[in-house]
Amino acid sequence: MLAAAATTTIESLCADLEGSMGGAGVLVKSEDKVGFLTDWSGDLIGNAVAVVRPRSIAEVQECVEICRRHGIGVVPQGGNSGLVGGGFPPAGSREMVIINLSRLNAIRRADAANATLELDAGCTLQKAKDAAHATGLQFPLALGAQGSCQIGGNAATNAGGVNVLRFGMARELILGLEAVLPDGSLWSSMRGLRKDNRGYDLKQLFIGSEGTLGIITGLCLKLHPRPARIETAYAGVGSIEDAMTISALARCELSELVTAFELIGTECLPLARLIDKGLTSPVSSVYPFHLLIELSCGKRLDGRALLEGFLADMLARGLIGDAVVAQSERQARSFWAIREGLVEGQARRGYHVRSDVSVRLGDVPAFVAAARAFAARDWPDWTPQVYGHAGDGNIHFNLLPPLGMHRRDALELGLRITESLFAIVEDFKGSISAEHGIGRARIGAFWEGLGEVERRTMRAIKNTLDPHDLMNPGCLIPVLEEQE
Amino acid sequence: MLAAAATTTIESLCADLEGSMGGAGVLVKSEDKVGFLTDWSGDLIGNAVAVVRPRSIAEVQECVEICRRHGIGVVPQGGNSGLVGGGFPPAGSREMVIINLSRLNAIRRADAANATLELDAGCTLQKAKDAAHATGLQFPLALGAQGSCQIGGNAATNAGGVNVLRFGMARELILGLEAVLPDGSLWSSMRGLRKDNRGYDLKQLFIGSEGTLGIITGLCLKLHPRPARIETAYAGVGSIEDAMTISALARCELSELVTAFELIGTECLPLARLIDKGLTSPVSSVYPFHLLIELSCGKRLDGRALLEGFLADMLARGLIGDAVVAQSERQARSFWAIREGLVEGQARRGYHVRSDVSVRLGDVPAFVAAARAFAARDWPDWTPQVYGHAGDGNIHFNLLPPLGMHRRDALELGLRITESLFAIVEDFKGSISAEHGIGRARIGAFWEGLGEVERRTMRAIKNTLDPHDLMNPGCLIPVLEEQE
Repeated sequence: MLAAAATTTIESLCADLEGSMGGAGVLVKSEDKVGFLTDWSGDLIGNAVAVVRPRSIAEVQECVEICRRHGIGVVPQGGNSGLVGGGFPPAGSREMVIINLSRLNAIRRADAANATLELDAGCTLQKAKDAAHATGLQFPLALGAQGSCQIGGNAATNAGGVNVLRFGMARELILGLEAVLPDGSLWSSMRGLRKDNRGYDLKQLFIGSEGTLGIITGLCLKLHPRPARIETAYAGVGSIEDAMTISALARCELSELVTAFELIGTECLPLARLIDKGLTSPVSSVYPFHLLIELSCGKRLDGRALLEGFLADMLARGLIGDAVVAQSERQARSFWAIREGLVEGQARRGYHVRSDVSVRLGDVPAFVAAARAFAARDWPDWTPQVYGHAGDGNIHFNLLPPLGMHRRDALELGLRITESLFAIVEDFKGSISAEHGIGRARIGAFWEGLGEVERRTMRAIKNTLDPHDLMNPGCLIPVLEEQE
Repeated sequence: MLAAAATTTIESLCADLEGSMGGAGVLVKSEDKVGFLTDWSGDLIGNAVAVVRPRSIAEVQECVEICRRHGIGVVPQGGNSGLVGGGFPPAGSREMVIINLSRLNAIRRADAANATLELDAGCTLQKAKDAAHATGLQFPLALGAQGSCQIGGNAATNAGGVNVLRFGMARELILGLEAVLPDGSLWSSMRGLRKDNRGYDLKQLFIGSEGTLGIITGLCLKLHPRPARIETAYAGVGSIEDAMTISALARCELSELVTAFELIGTECLPLARLIDKGLTSPVSSVYPFHLLIELSCGKRLDGRALLEGFLADMLARGLIGDAVVAQSERQARSFWAIREGLVEGQARRGYHVRSDVSVRLGDVPAFVAAARAFAARDWPDWTPQVYGHAGDGNIHFNLLPPLGMHRRDALELGLRITESLFAIVEDFKGSISAEHGIGRARIGAFWEGLGEVERRTMRAIKNTLDPHDLMNPGCLIPVLEEQE
């Protein structure tokens, strides 16, 4: 554990940082820092001695070295679009420095022949996707925040999104990684080889480590063929059981060409309408659940015929009530506007209980039933919302507080509701964080849920690579004095 | 480091093991142990105090605990089909105990709805594949040794094989893992969730660790749809450049439905004929290289038409000289018999320089040219063989010694040849082990090739989880006194 820093240390720390980085690279005034200290939802507001914005790997190394010398914790920050408070120190925490990677944002090498893209960690996901597109290929990671989130943050949090079903999480899309370790040295595995079986695959440790083992400065991404055709369908189904059956059949019969399989509870539609009043359901009747299905394929395959044939069969078997295949890109975008709008609509409505849980695929219907029964019994005034990446077993089961409830009261009750929800997830041996990570918001429940051996092993890894708890203290791994 | 054990220790060690395991579980006589002390190629012969065969996780834990107490190193062993000497202690090494997992071989749970298979580490790969098949799905890892290699060994070595192109290495097929740690405790992540973003993904450390961090006792495997159709083609091409172009086009145009893309140098065919004299080339003329292409798909896709259409286009563009699509399963098997026969033929011919290297996809042609030029210049009496998983950039560049050369001489020269080959690989910033691992055979070149930070970090992880170097000493991580 680092010692708490005295005021004089803070002043000399800032002087050292400015000396190394230049004034423009070090933000210390409150008005300059504020944009780096609020999360997307607005639920969290942070605190930091300084926000440093290095322009090179060497500058990242210098920052880390200066903070280490001064005994000040470092919080690596990407696009600040995380949802669990991992990207900045919370208000009231001890002094820490944010190292924001946004100025380390060069595309290093796009190699179409190798189907790889090497780039700096501070590139936005959209910039990575654009560079991949320019090679004739694609980088398939797809998130709502892709315009602002950074590829280094995607790696550090093992980001998921809507195309995990086909292409995996960020972990499966990363071939190489480079990181500044807490001692200031640079660890690297950037050869860009598709197969390399030499020793421990340590990049896997940094992926998903949420900045607690080092600062990711560069990545080598695996690219996939850019689909010649993307077909999108919207369907109404009678139950989650049917949705899961359709998901399994689609996967088998369509050779894993399905790139998205999203479940949307009918109760989510009014939220999407908060964003666009004109939104209407693409299907004729009211169904308990809607599906958004996307199929992508190369030029030799007739994706439209495949998807239509599959859906016709599902209709004939009574698994689907009604289905529409988009006849234009514009229509496809209007289907996605429902899925994206409901998330934005939730945020606009204000505070709500957000969850991001996963269970085994076969347990999805029973889990949703249990969570709904709990909500109806214990919190009848709150409105449950069910949506998510059903094909992966990843459900966002959220609860909206009654309209007019004071935000402070809702926040307090929300903590209790979340605790109960997590207990249900544990009954199903599921995960309380399928894709959002742990950060600071989920650290208590996460650590409690681990077995003794898992806890000990995880802490041993942290202590080995970061013996002084310099990197993102209080995120993911509890600080010893406070929580154990 | 463990202290060398005295003879009395050995006797009491064996007594303790027999007391815990029963006599049938502990082999100490030379004639009983010999089958566990020779590798597949016959190039290596090992040595062990005892071979222990536990029947339960608790027995594995007891064995580890007993060895730890006696200060005796433990070598975990699966089906003993590795090619780098990682699975048994070499002749002349200090005393060690082999823990062979073959009796820990139950299928625990095949869950079709979740598309997962939980099983003991000692199940053969074939048994895992059969259990997956019985659920209506498939486990796509495919290796020559699948009848004898064990799934625990596949995980510990991050096994590759012929379907990596589509499904990834073993790492990408493992959802959960369970391992006995060097302190005897059991680490586990067997929930079988397709998405779980809670903290460091420590199973990734055990995958590819070659038994140096613990003994894998159980796995949860990710299953894929079983293809309704598998189409196989054999083609002749004029150059590796053309082969790599075809590989990239097939990947894009056929939506990654290609499950195997194997390159076979024409010079390999006589080797296959050592196994089956009747083997003939499926294509009419003599081409410098042959391709074996496999496409797998679900029932709604016409794989035959897709593959034929693609090959017709490649013929029209002059990229392929001649191609045959198998009209029956029997014909498809005859194509594969060439690929499998050449490996067996090499082994039958006797000792040969074996390599398993990878370079970036775009560098494959230049690498093969450089390796061939080196062989022709420096070792004109030796016969180079080029084959491999070209779609992954993974080439087996082997050299057969002149007929009649004494085995001892060939072995000695082989070491020098390998060293030069590895230098060429390093010129291309490739990997000296794309899929076979490091074991004991590659440890010198591996460790020398690492940077100082990589070396320090890798050793730190080993020391953290196995502070007394109990697990597979001398494999992957050099023993301190001897090699540093």
